[in-house]
Amino acid sequence: MGIKKDSVDYSLYLVTDRNILKGRDLFAAVEEAILGGVTLVQLREKEVSSKEFYNTALKMKQLTSHYGIPLIINDRLDIMLAVDAEGLHIGQEDLPLQAARKIIGADKILGYSVSNLDEAKQGKALGADYLGAGPVYYTGTKSDAGKPIGLEELKRIKDSVKIPVVAIGGINETNAAEVKQTGVDGIALVSAILGKQNTGAISRQLISLWKGN
Amino acid sequence: MGIKKDSVDYSLYLVTDRNILKGRDLFAAVEEAILGGVTLVQLREKEVSSKEFYNTALKMKQLTSHYGIPLIINDRLDIMLAVDAEGLHIGQEDLPLQAARKIIGADKILGYSVSNLDEAKQGKALGADYLGAGPVYYTGTKSDAGKPIGLEELKRIKDSVKIPVVAIGGINETNAAEVKQTGVDGIALVSAILGKQNTGAISRQLISLWKGN
Ligand code: NI
Repeated sequence: MGIKKDSVDYSLYLVTDRNILKGRDLFAAVEEAILGGVTLVQLREKEVSSKEFYNTALKMKQLTSHYGIPLIINDRLDIMLAVDAEGLHIGQEDLPLQAARKIIGADKILGYSVSNLDEAKQGKALGADYLGAGPVYYTGTKSDAGKPIGLEELKRIKDSVKIPVVAIGGINETNAAEVKQTGVDGIALVSAILGKQNTGAISRQLISLWKGN
Repeated sequence: MGIKKDSVDYSLYLVTDRNILKGRDLFAAVEEAILGGVTLVQLREKEVSSKEFYNTALKMKQLTSHYGIPLIINDRLDIMLAVDAEGLHIGQEDLPLQAARKIIGADKILGYSVSNLDEAKQGKALGADYLGAGPVYYTGTKSDAGKPIGLEELKRIKDSVKIPVVAIGGINETNAAEVKQTGVDGIALVSAILGKQNTGAISRQLISLWKGN
């Protein structure tokens, strides 16, 4: 692949959710976010047919490739393979990590959602390339997100694993600075970017907050 | 793989649906059906997590392998790969046929749902190994099944393509004989087998009807 997995910049990780776009076009919004400074895009689709997920992923891959940004597919390994995305993100209710790695091979990025230190250690042991840790704060985005883990557990996770950790859940421009203090490699955002009309400006603000100090 | 795709017996093709089991165990019911004469099993799961689909598929694969029956996974290519099932069945709302074939390779069975002659010809041209053609009759099983194609269109499809054709939709022990007259290679059943308490006996009746004349 054109993008080497060891040199991925996890700083500003955008996770898509077409339900919060309020009528705006998904691709236009993601492009704005990329132009604003997003460094990685995860395409997450729920309750769509495989055909629709595939078509969306294909178009998203063209967009992210155009900007040299890695595309990560949520959950669906088949879609990832079919569009040759850079990576796959799996959660606790998805395919087992080892089964996924066996199929996608060593060159693809494999992300894993964790909500505590045990899961983080397990994820690292089973071959995850990075961890999505959270929810850090309360969030309305994912109904199954669970209780916030807080900054201390986030820091404990980052201190314990050597792989990149991306914080997720309720992060926005008001708390990004304190999240950065934990030492994590990046912040993942859904509604704080895609739920806003000023997607580009918010992305610029977030990336400068993150890279600034 | 242990099962050669050129020697698959499509005669009595069981498609699973856990919603019609009325509390019975899926694996026990499928085992009864296999012992009764089912020659092929398609695992179809809707609205379950990838983890649950994977776990079910893994267990189903053990069962079908024990009896030397091919297992086909509906829609989810990733699950097929993860459990090394013998094949994948895709519909009009799933991954494109060519994208699927490219990933699964030539040795795996690739089935395709068609409801008219054009789709059948397209499916054959794009590399399907067999076609699931229907619905032949009205059916309550799939809400999105569409209008019945009838025996004439079924015969037209079978006469036009050289690959195996399995008839699906509303087939049971009362009409299996007239379906056989069309020359198709097998019948696919959901509720006519799994919706019955006497799964084994019905399977025996169907396979003897099919192989008898
Ligand atoms: Ni590349």
